[in-house]
Amino acid sequence: MDLEVSNSYHQQGVGIVGAGLVGCLAALAFNAKGFSVTLFEYRDDPSKTKNDNLRSINLAVSARGIRALKYVDEEMAERILEHIIPMKGRMIHDLDGNQTSQLYGLFGEAINSIDRSFLNECLLEEIRHTDIKVLFNHKLVAFEKNHGEDQTPKMTFIDTSEGDAASKTFEFDYIVGADGAHSQFRTQLQRTMRMNYSQEYIDMQYIELYIPPSESAKDDSKFLLNPNHLHIWPRTNHMLIALANKDGSFTCTFFSPWSVIEGITSTEQWISFFKKNFKDAYDLIGEARLATVYETHPRGSLLQVNVYPYHSPDGRAILLGDAAHSMVPFYGQGMNCGFEDVRTLMELIDEKGGDVLEAFRSYTEIRKADLDAICKLALDNYHEMSHKVTSLWYLTRKRIDSLLGKLNGKYFQWIPLYTMVSFRDDIRYSQAIEIEKRQGRFLNNIQYGFLSAVAVTSLIKGLQMWGRRT
Amino acid sequence: MDLEVSNSYHQQGVGIVGAGLVGCLAALAFNAKGFSVTLFEYRDDPSKTKNDNLRSINLAVSARGIRALKYVDEEMAERILEHIIPMKGRMIHDLDGNQTSQLYGLFGEAINSIDRSFLNECLLEEIRHTDIKVLFNHKLVAFEKNHGEDQTPKMTFIDTSEGDAASKTFEFDYIVGADGAHSQFRTQLQRTMRMNYSQEYIDMQYIELYIPPSESAKDDSKFLLNPNHLHIWPRTNHMLIALANKDGSFTCTFFSPWSVIEGITSTEQWISFFKKNFKDAYDLIGEARLATVYETHPRGSLLQVNVYPYHSPDGRAILLGDAAHSMVPFYGQGMNCGFEDVRTLMELIDEKGGDVLEAFRSYTEIRKADLDAICKLALDNYHEMSHKVTSLWYLTRKRIDSLLGKLNGKYFQWIPLYTMVSFRDDIRYSQAIEIEKRQGRFLNNIQYGFLSAVAVTSLIKGLQMWGRRT
Repeated sequence: MDLEVSNSYHQQGVGIVGAGLVGCLAALAFNAKGFSVTLFEYRDDPSKTKNDNLRSINLAVSARGIRALKYVDEEMAERILEHIIPMKGRMIHDLDGNQTSQLYGLFGEAINSIDRSFLNECLLEEIRHTDIKVLFNHKLVAFEKNHGEDQTPKMTFIDTSEGDAASKTFEFDYIVGADGAHSQFRTQLQRTMRMNYSQEYIDMQYIELYIPPSESAKDDSKFLLNPNHLHIWPRTNHMLIALANKDGSFTCTFFSPWSVIEGITSTEQWISFFKKNFKDAYDLIGEARLATVYETHPRGSLLQVNVYPYHSPDGRAILLGDAAHSMVPFYGQGMNCGFEDVRTLMELIDEKGGDVLEAFRSYTEIRKADLDAICKLALDNYHEMSHKVTSLWYLTRKRIDSLLGKLNGKYFQWIPLYTMVSFRDDIRYSQAIEIEKRQGRFLNNIQYGFLSAVAVTSLIKGLQMWGRRT
Repeated sequence: MDLEVSNSYHQQGVGIVGAGLVGCLAALAFNAKGFSVTLFEYRDDPSKTKNDNLRSINLAVSARGIRALKYVDEEMAERILEHIIPMKGRMIHDLDGNQTSQLYGLFGEAINSIDRSFLNECLLEEIRHTDIKVLFNHKLVAFEKNHGEDQTPKMTFIDTSEGDAASKTFEFDYIVGADGAHSQFRTQLQRTMRMNYSQEYIDMQYIELYIPPSESAKDDSKFLLNPNHLHIWPRTNHMLIALANKDGSFTCTFFSPWSVIEGITSTEQWISFFKKNFKDAYDLIGEARLATVYETHPRGSLLQVNVYPYHSPDGRAILLGDAAHSMVPFYGQGMNCGFEDVRTLMELIDEKGGDVLEAFRSYTEIRKADLDAICKLALDNYHEMSHKVTSLWYLTRKRIDSLLGKLNGKYFQWIPLYTMVSFRDDIRYSQAIEIEKRQGRFLNNIQYGFLSAVAVTSLIKGLQMWGRRT
């Protein structure tokens, strides 16, 4: 097949709203296919400003994210993946500071820690080497859908860097909304169509904390904790997590229901709460830093967003990433799923021979079940991380699950859920849920069967002893 | 108890956004309690403008609506109820124009037809006799929640009747958002709090039609159809309904999935579709009027909206009516439920000894289950109206249900669902669903039991015959 024809859709204009992770990858992907791409971003160019967001949660890049990066550009993927820190498992910290490792994969597979802003900057750097036009400080104020056959949709922006806040109108063949959970493009699009929409706040807040690199010259490593694990301090209804950064530091996040944090009303209470629940982390973070965190760091809220359909009826506009499906961060799949959105859409464009309208329309139908599935999995995984990881029932189950997983393909098919979601980009999220349902029923049978056997054996023994005594 | 103290909360300011049905009743209710009320409306004063909405669905006032009107003002309720037309049942029209009556109540109870704009005008007329301040042409552009203890929330409006679109800011102790499914107040409120929100478009459109009063002097009645029924032409996946107006006319509504109306692409096709499906209605409406309807009447969409919580965390603002829970119109409960919202809130204010903050906060907790329940019932009732009303299974069930309902209280408790929802304002919507679940199981047992008995009897007879033959 002629590469020139199949992969190049010359100079149809694509406007992308949002230069976050998904918007950047979408821009690179459309550009690689020969579209003329303009990328709009509400904020200033991050390379020109200091990043002091204080609400980042380190990302865990896994198979789906990597596959999408490679789909767009193999060499780019390699350049980016140089900066990741592999995490082979969870490291569970108990109240006394004892650490237990629980591997993620069956054969040493790892998910990979990377700082969100850093990854965003990597993608923007890639964009600078293309002819993608990037307009920072552009605030979307209006969207007008196409009227009639030949017309194309329009977007109006205010350039906030200009003194007189001049508005400019742009016309595109296709528009991608990738401007996050609070998407302004989505709000505008909703005015022109019947779009189902739901937003649900999960009763949980999060605060960012920081473990510095080691200062001691004696240390072999610059890391104060094992960098190749995702550290978790599970405390049933709240938890602390920590992910390593390349410089030896760890970005930590404290998650709790709002009532827990609102029940703490002074810096002293906060420090004493922290010391009691996360003793070893308290030692690493230090009291001064903890006080600053309590007094100055913002509390983030967790929001689930879902829309349907993802595309406009005329097939000219589409929502990708958090703008379409913002999920809670507990499966580490938000970015991976957003990247997979981009790959799925690009493959559809190829499949439809470059007919973008047709691809946008098919996307909703094809992607809905998978996006619903991962949003649900992400929510369910909070209970696993904060609570179940310490239960005997869970640990036994995980052990059987892993054992069966290692035997997969020999006599039967068995793939643990975590493996399907994080390491098997060839299994759709919705399939993963279906397969897990079957496997879960089987595991239940084994576990309850074992318990019943124990109970029956005990009963028989009891009766025998009672018989001997009488 | 001193009426002066218990019922009068002197001159605390209440701002109400939206002078539709629920906003007007809320204004009258707060005013009756001694609050200083300002009512804002985006549209012009309806008494000054011709109503040509063309998207009205006649309302069916029933027990909950009447109770709320009476709660606010007994005499007002009587003045309004003079204008209603009681509907004792459904009148089912088959394809040949044969009509069958199905009574709503067990003892002749009726729901009551009234024109939406007319009812709105009645309430505004009541308001004119109070010192409630009504500001038409006021478009809400900003809401600012209270900061700190003593401050009160602010709203900024643009007076669209003024040439230079001057904006004015108002300060209130309490704010009620009653500006409908597309509530602007809700949008503003959401910016200040974590509010769950969902909107779901039901795949269905509606078009308003009109049956004129009788022109013939010979007719005993000015009505071309029995006015004391809600007329239904159920056609499985689409339907026509008609409700009487005082002047002898009927307001009709055609409901169908979007694919049905979009499959009709010319006036001729529309007329032939209508003639085929609704022959008797076609004769009454007339071809010329049907053509005008097809060519000029807008197609309405059906939207379900739900929020949680209904109040702001500081207890200063609340959402009532469609702004909080827009439902589909198939149980005739949208307005009744909105009016019940007002009564529920007012009774809470009394219960809390005039502490509005406390009442707003309790409202969410108390009202949630009932609002979820009626939204679900409204959606389910489409299937009943458009389809089930013609099935033998349904008709048999309804007959047993009615029979048991008539015996209610003698040997057991039994109240048909429709009666609980429409005629029993003392039964909460959520209770109605619970009771119906129990009754439904019992009816299933009777119906399946009967079928099994018939089957077994037939089997025995068959075996006997076979035995005789061999």
